[in-house]
Amino acid sequence: MPVEELTAEERDTWLRALPQWSLTREGKAIERSFEFADFAEAFAFMTRIAIIAEKRDHHPEWFNVYNKVDITLTTHDAGGLSLRDVNMAKKIDKLV
Amino acid sequence: MPVEELTAEERDTWLRALPQWSLTREGKAIERSFEFADFAEAFAFMTRIAIIAEKRDHHPEWFNVYNKVDITLTTHDAGGLSLRDVNMAKKIDKLV
Repeated sequence: MPVEELTAEERDTWLRALPQWSLTREGKAIERSFEFADFAEAFAFMTRIAIIAEKRDHHPEWFNVYNKVDITLTTHDAGGLSLRDVNMAKKIDKLV
Repeated sequence: MPVEELTAEERDTWLRALPQWSLTREGKAIERSFEFADFAEAFAFMTRIAIIAEKRDHHPEWFNVYNKVDITLTTHDAGGLSLRDVNMAKKIDKLV
């Protein structure tokens, strides 16, 4: 099944369920920043996401420094946001 | 023992041993980009570094997307590059 970019309407509908994620890159991606007690907690969080990402073959773009993790989700194959990003964001939200 | 910023001369001497790292942030940090076969390999590399970083209490700033990892090293306590960055860079170089 090909992965399709969400329309602007679909995107806005889905994003209502993801209030902590912000649209970025002119609507082509979403991002959220996380803060933990320390590096060990931040990296443990990243490790859980890494396993989920690998299983789904859908990988985040992310930046980490010490206790902070910034995650950006986009679907390169779709040229923007797809349902895969929405589902991944929901899954990540459940981890924290 | 307080961590001191390297002088420009010390920095240049040490960096000769780290040809794959580039100075960035006006000489306050060094960076190197790595590329792996896939995400699993990239994240395995990050995990090894995470353990070393935690042990040394000296953490990288890093960005990952799929098979790519960009690492920046600096010593916040020293306000720039210190020997801790040089030693961490050497350790990272040995992993690849």
